[in-house]
Amino acid sequence: MSVSTPSLTFDFAGIELDRQQGLSRQLYQTLRQRILDGRLGGGTRLPASRDLAASLSISRNSVLRAYDQLYAEGFTEARRGDGTYVAQLTEHAGAAKKLSTKVSTGLSPGLSTGLSTVVSNEAGNSSCKVIHSTSLMRLEKHHLSAHKTGLPRAFRIGLPAFDLFPFDVWGKLHAAFWRKPGLHQLGYGDPAGEWRLRELIAMYLRTSRDLKCDAEQIVITSGAQQAITLCAQLLLNEGDAVAFENPGYRAAGHAFAVAGATLRGMSVDIDGMRCPDDESRCTLAYVTPSHQYPLGVTMSLARRLELLAWAERTGGWIVEDDYDGEYRYSGAPLAPLAALDRSGRVLYVGTFGKVAFPALRLGYLVLPRNLVKPFSQRRALDMRHSEIGTQAVMAEFIAAGHFQRHIRRMRRAALSRRDALLAGWPEDIRGCSAMPKPLAGLHVSVAVDSLQRESELVAKAESVGVEIAPLSDYWLPDSATPVDNRAGLVLGFAAVPEADIASALQRLRGIWKD
Amino acid sequence: MSVSTPSLTFDFAGIELDRQQGLSRQLYQTLRQRILDGRLGGGTRLPASRDLAASLSISRNSVLRAYDQLYAEGFTEARRGDGTYVAQLTEHAGAAKKLSTKVSTGLSPGLSTGLSTVVSNEAGNSSCKVIHSTSLMRLEKHHLSAHKTGLPRAFRIGLPAFDLFPFDVWGKLHAAFWRKPGLHQLGYGDPAGEWRLRELIAMYLRTSRDLKCDAEQIVITSGAQQAITLCAQLLLNEGDAVAFENPGYRAAGHAFAVAGATLRGMSVDIDGMRCPDDESRCTLAYVTPSHQYPLGVTMSLARRLELLAWAERTGGWIVEDDYDGEYRYSGAPLAPLAALDRSGRVLYVGTFGKVAFPALRLGYLVLPRNLVKPFSQRRALDMRHSEIGTQAVMAEFIAAGHFQRHIRRMRRAALSRRDALLAGWPEDIRGCSAMPKPLAGLHVSVAVDSLQRESELVAKAESVGVEIAPLSDYWLPDSATPVDNRAGLVLGFAAVPEADIASALQRLRGIWKD
Repeated sequence: MSVSTPSLTFDFAGIELDRQQGLSRQLYQTLRQRILDGRLGGGTRLPASRDLAASLSISRNSVLRAYDQLYAEGFTEARRGDGTYVAQLTEHAGAAKKLSTKVSTGLSPGLSTGLSTVVSNEAGNSSCKVIHSTSLMRLEKHHLSAHKTGLPRAFRIGLPAFDLFPFDVWGKLHAAFWRKPGLHQLGYGDPAGEWRLRELIAMYLRTSRDLKCDAEQIVITSGAQQAITLCAQLLLNEGDAVAFENPGYRAAGHAFAVAGATLRGMSVDIDGMRCPDDESRCTLAYVTPSHQYPLGVTMSLARRLELLAWAERTGGWIVEDDYDGEYRYSGAPLAPLAALDRSGRVLYVGTFGKVAFPALRLGYLVLPRNLVKPFSQRRALDMRHSEIGTQAVMAEFIAAGHFQRHIRRMRRAALSRRDALLAGWPEDIRGCSAMPKPLAGLHVSVAVDSLQRESELVAKAESVGVEIAPLSDYWLPDSATPVDNRAGLVLGFAAVPEADIASALQRLRGIWKD
Repeated sequence: MSVSTPSLTFDFAGIELDRQQGLSRQLYQTLRQRILDGRLGGGTRLPASRDLAASLSISRNSVLRAYDQLYAEGFTEARRGDGTYVAQLTEHAGAAKKLSTKVSTGLSPGLSTGLSTVVSNEAGNSSCKVIHSTSLMRLEKHHLSAHKTGLPRAFRIGLPAFDLFPFDVWGKLHAAFWRKPGLHQLGYGDPAGEWRLRELIAMYLRTSRDLKCDAEQIVITSGAQQAITLCAQLLLNEGDAVAFENPGYRAAGHAFAVAGATLRGMSVDIDGMRCPDDESRCTLAYVTPSHQYPLGVTMSLARRLELLAWAERTGGWIVEDDYDGEYRYSGAPLAPLAALDRSGRVLYVGTFGKVAFPALRLGYLVLPRNLVKPFSQRRALDMRHSEIGTQAVMAEFIAAGHFQRHIRRMRRAALSRRDALLAGWPEDIRGCSAMPKPLAGLHVSVAVDSLQRESELVAKAESVGVEIAPLSDYWLPDSATPVDNRAGLVLGFAAVPEADIASALQRLRGIWKD
């Protein structure tokens, strides 16, 4: 990039202003650019505002406003009785320019594999900058694949029947809250969340889950994902091992990995995740006992007690993700691990996203008492607290009985949509096991006999607009299980109404015919 | 804790049910407890439901529901044609009990100073559990002191005149959004935020800050604090040095420290924060150039260019926190560092909390293009994305012109409240410098000649219900500056209306009289 020699006389040439836009702003920007790139050198006298206005055919006021702004920002300086001059800035601006191609070489040896990114700057010259944080490197390997967005489709995973959510009620509760909010609620709030909501959640868990807890133990989070991240960030040290269901919920796995942990894939059998042995030296176990994600197994009581004994014996933590505990189609929901925990080793994760709608981003942790303070403190540092309106409105939604009513409605809807899937599912797909009848949750898994067949079925489904997740995606990359044994299909059955399910199944029958 | 020998005959004694509560639930809980603590041993036959119902004088249905739940959860098992038996669980339950006093000793040497916490479990025996994560240890030293909550008072820091926020408009926009939300917006969304809001923010920054940026570069956050935390987590490695204004915004400092960084306190002079020299090997500089927090200095253009040259030269990052950039009482707001950055080294932090109200928790980052992807990925792992309603409503609030109108209203209000403070401030307080006239922001700092006098003034103010923050709290603990030179008072002047300011000042004049 060539830099013209600073001229000490002001050059009007080339100042072109678009008459459709704000003139003083354009003039200010043009002059600032010229000062910064050295075309207007320090010490250059700016023309009198009247003269410049005349030569550009704009109002003197426009020039004065531009001059004022340049002056306020230190680009120009006034000499008493002698007009306005460009400030002496070139040493810095020049220094910045000369050195712009020099690259940081201060990497520590262990980090020299960091990502290199070419940064092209505004002036057009590009320099190789190295971004070298461990965190960024870990993200390269551990990030969520872009979530499916847009209108729900059959058979998207993770979506409840949120077309049935009473948005009218929700909107009215919002309107009521904002009509006369207490000023005391609008400044900085409690990082653990609004007290009333915490009380109502504790009450809900006591009655619906037999989980003895009180409001003090509840910490509100931005969805289950933030609850899991907090556990990862607070309970783990660099290099700690985490017992992780394999196949399992990869988004949780990535959160643990980015916090520096190593994932130990634990196989899942008919009783749920196998318990880590003491030699594995795991610090934490992440489990979905009420409805294993993605296989759908419910962890047996024997396995639950074994896992709790492991945690007591080794001082390990159990993160219990009860992401879809509201959906049980026979009998009441099972008592969670947290309800059996007698030693404060279980951190229970709950969410409203699977009862209301995911974009609500409202979840919570039930914590052993001695963890409440550090978790609240960490959350305060991370983001202070959650937005007040959503918390207050959800509290009212629960208090007024809408929540319990809605859970019943959602359970009925999910059941009916499950039945639509079971009724219309093609029985005779080559390479595909029979579809089990899911007794809980919002999704079902079907085994497929090879990875190749899995890809084929998923791709064909996609070609007729049907979303099916490949089960192999849920396995840790370094699993010992042979790849063909990881193959399968995972289907969310609650995202769309029965008619759409039937239509999707009809298309599948057509495209999957051999 | 003594464990009674498991009996294989069922003992009805001591089952007491409260007739005001759900009977089947109570029965279920009682039996579960007895199975877990060994009073009902594995293999014990449960009485026929009819007999138990008769002996407890409850309906047979209540007993059946309790039995069903116990069976579903694996506490009991059925033997064909022969009734229901307690499952063989004692090996696990017993194992859990026997080992409950053994403590984890698997600490690595460097972590043996971790916090020890005595956990008292439900059964009454207590065991010493060690919570030993580095993160928890750092939190012990680095956490926010509890934020002042409750109704705004004179002279609370960090609060705009949010009593003037048009809550009625806000409520109506919420009602309108929820009346007919698009289903496509209610599933999982973009971790960087809603596109429309990002576009409107970019447009706002282009016109109000001369900050050339587009929607792609904007990442929505839960307030400025989350924006700062993301920078800390993504750009820093363990042990990196951060150039930090001293005195400065401690909440940001804690976020960097908890991420593993060492804070290098940089003194603040009339030009703003001093620039780190290259030998300091700082990876990142955190600055509040438009209105230094808490001293109120505006960083000079020369210092801005020097800092940018440092960042280019060393490959350092600049986190520019423009927390109250909307409040400038003479001239337009200064162009931020991000507007002068030609090499993609500046991360700009903005917030709606100081224009709307803090409990809104809505802020944003303007990022160099090559950082947008990793920041979005990290945010997705941390919490997926921000709640949809608040984002959509803020977008509409801006698009409909309410935002710009409100900024003007807030600026006028803050100015008028500032003037009320200046007009009524007692001039002759012993040990106190004259109050400068703040030309920007929502607070003002006054120097005091000793730490002792600072405490005295703050305590006396508190005794008459007036909140004043001691300036010494804003210094890093290991500052070289003598303690008495750190003393001062920091007053937020926008939190309450003029009349309340006048009344607070009158009380101060009374109590501060020597």
